[in-house]
Amino acid sequence: MTLMVDPDLFSTFMTKISEFGTSPGGGLNREAGTTHHGQARDWFFGQLRDRGYRIQIDEIGNVFAVLEAKDRVDAPVVMVGSHLDSQPFGGRFDGAYGVIAAFTAVEALRADAEAMGVSPECSFVIVDWMNEEGARFQPSLLGSSVYCGELGLNYALTLCDGVGLNVEDELERIGYRGTDVAPRADFYIEMHVEGNDALEKADLQIGPFTRYWGAIKIRAAMHGETSHTGPTLMQDRRDATLAAAYAIVGTREISNRRDGALYSSCGRLVIQPNSPNMVADLATMFIELRSPDPDELQAAEAELMEVLRDSADMAGVTHEVISIDRREAGAFDPRLVALCEEQAESLGLGTMRLETIGGHDAVPISRKMPGIVIAIPSVGGVIHHPDEYSKPEDLINGANVLARMILAIERAGGDLDMTLKDRA
Amino acid sequence: MTLMVDPDLFSTFMTKISEFGTSPGGGLNREAGTTHHGQARDWFFGQLRDRGYRIQIDEIGNVFAVLEAKDRVDAPVVMVGSHLDSQPFGGRFDGAYGVIAAFTAVEALRADAEAMGVSPECSFVIVDWMNEEGARFQPSLLGSSVYCGELGLNYALTLCDGVGLNVEDELERIGYRGTDVAPRADFYIEMHVEGNDALEKADLQIGPFTRYWGAIKIRAAMHGETSHTGPTLMQDRRDATLAAAYAIVGTREISNRRDGALYSSCGRLVIQPNSPNMVADLATMFIELRSPDPDELQAAEAELMEVLRDSADMAGVTHEVISIDRREAGAFDPRLVALCEEQAESLGLGTMRLETIGGHDAVPISRKMPGIVIAIPSVGGVIHHPDEYSKPEDLINGANVLARMILAIERAGGDLDMTLKDRA
Repeated sequence: MTLMVDPDLFSTFMTKISEFGTSPGGGLNREAGTTHHGQARDWFFGQLRDRGYRIQIDEIGNVFAVLEAKDRVDAPVVMVGSHLDSQPFGGRFDGAYGVIAAFTAVEALRADAEAMGVSPECSFVIVDWMNEEGARFQPSLLGSSVYCGELGLNYALTLCDGVGLNVEDELERIGYRGTDVAPRADFYIEMHVEGNDALEKADLQIGPFTRYWGAIKIRAAMHGETSHTGPTLMQDRRDATLAAAYAIVGTREISNRRDGALYSSCGRLVIQPNSPNMVADLATMFIELRSPDPDELQAAEAELMEVLRDSADMAGVTHEVISIDRREAGAFDPRLVALCEEQAESLGLGTMRLETIGGHDAVPISRKMPGIVIAIPSVGGVIHHPDEYSKPEDLINGANVLARMILAIERAGGDLDMTLKDRA
Repeated sequence: MTLMVDPDLFSTFMTKISEFGTSPGGGLNREAGTTHHGQARDWFFGQLRDRGYRIQIDEIGNVFAVLEAKDRVDAPVVMVGSHLDSQPFGGRFDGAYGVIAAFTAVEALRADAEAMGVSPECSFVIVDWMNEEGARFQPSLLGSSVYCGELGLNYALTLCDGVGLNVEDELERIGYRGTDVAPRADFYIEMHVEGNDALEKADLQIGPFTRYWGAIKIRAAMHGETSHTGPTLMQDRRDATLAAAYAIVGTREISNRRDGALYSSCGRLVIQPNSPNMVADLATMFIELRSPDPDELQAAEAELMEVLRDSADMAGVTHEVISIDRREAGAFDPRLVALCEEQAESLGLGTMRLETIGGHDAVPISRKMPGIVIAIPSVGGVIHHPDEYSKPEDLINGANVLARMILAIERAGGDLDMTLKDRA
């Protein structure tokens, strides 16, 4: 097999897609449903339409570029992709890389088939999931979760951002509130920059994720009472911000006690009225707990409930758990892990099995079909930051591995066990 | 003396002024420089213009309604008033009461003089200070501080709110970027609702403030680094929000150690990027320390600096003290305290000497001329909250005391010592 992606095509697309929503310091600010997000999609899928892909937009705003197998109506469908939305001040590679890698991999396979005068045995779908990041609309993995039935469409459409705009209206506004039925798929493979520096430190190029950590996302509020920060006696204050501060410190202690085996955070904290001389009556926290061990996670959740209660008591306020979103730990298809390793090795690339702690669209998708996320190195492990960077050769290596994986699946007529027959 | 304010006039004005910027629960949302703020001023000063007052607007947007003594060019000038701006979800009485009380008191004196066919010996100025609250633009007491030269006009005009709009443009927009030279004054008296429940609990009606606490307002930032709340190792996180949480808890401990003799708060906390799955790289805190004792305040400031340093260290971030605004403790003119007590007693009202912990425009003003703030009861001590409420009889009592105080000053030809001669 000599299949390789076109590095010029890859580079042209990667450069161009980075122009939509550039932010200071070489980063991206392309949150889901924003004008820049719409423009990135317009350009990218316009290009694919011109190249003969059929573009479909489903009701939650996932976009699919479909290349159908000509000869078989019931051809296996290989879906590849990631997401074009970003964090508010994120980087250029998180998400966008997976979409461009997917496109160039399918194009390589298509060119290869054309050169040989054959038609592919499989259909291919390049997907751009809606609101993977969850920065603007919570929860994250929105489009993929609706796609695989883990989240209701109507619920998802009514979610609001921080200023009260909802998913449906914002999709409508940027032209991505679709009506198409989403195409079915049989396999899902996603390339992604590593959120850490394990590959870089080990000087390896390809990191298939074997399993994903479980996560619990808790939204909780402290309810105090507004008063004047001047005359109000200290003992009379019902300070929601103070309660939140106790809770944030307590949350960190839950993970400190476990010495790295459990991750915790409070990334978002919304305070009202947030005036310098008013005691706040509302502080809403977005807390996350993550662990590969379901028992550990359950224990940590119970401890967090105590932290919230105690923190509220110490500040003389009440607390409310608004929502708890539990995401179970699990494993990606071991055959896709093996296939990834086989193809990487055939290219002379070193591999390392990883576990993903952050969410990826492949997580919900892999509960419905064989799926996987595969990492490439990220310099310094920087992610969700303008400095996020992956070297051109690492980007291309990943796209080549993807191209060879989908070619192997296609050659095996969609029989995943067959792709590994040389190995067995 | 039978001078009394017209209760119907008072009630009509108090009701009408509460209509500009009403918020849920009977409160007010009339931050400085907003459209509602402008509309309240338009209506109020329109009424005064119709009644023959000369309206002057200075360059920082303070508004003065002047009633000049007819017979004396060099007549003493008695300034009375407060502010029409409110907190974002504040109450109807904080500020507005002082302005309406001032107006009805001057009107009572004017009607009295007309009835007797005489001209007042003093000029009177009813003032509405710009941005007393400091909710939208920091620092608070903006207009009065510029008026008495404690803050530079150009600096004040360029201050920005949370979305980047500045004082000058917003004043221009609502029509209150004036060009008039502010009128001089010789005395300043301000009526205000108490920010506590001392008067209510003691069943007393009038509370002259004898002194004001010192305050230190510190703006400090924690500088971390954005990263993903998923894959980033706990020990690699530089979480600005966590550092701020440590600092908020530590700030509270500074006042807990002093058992009520020192007040502290962090009313405003601004986090960036404030996304649920991003570790924050910036958390800006607006911290206040207040005490009647300058030594205590100085010691607390030093402790706060340690808290900021230690909090940053614990979270692996750096900290920055952006600004420190020190407001010295001091005393109001004792002759105005005595005059207030004398006039209240003559009306059969009970008095209690108080200290003000929150800032008032009378604080900077009283460093330039005899000045005072006088409290009336606030039910439950509620302030900066929609439930803020003072009973109609208490409101009128306060306005009557003010009317009699300014009448006494006028009768004494502006000689404050003379107003107390009966007493000596």
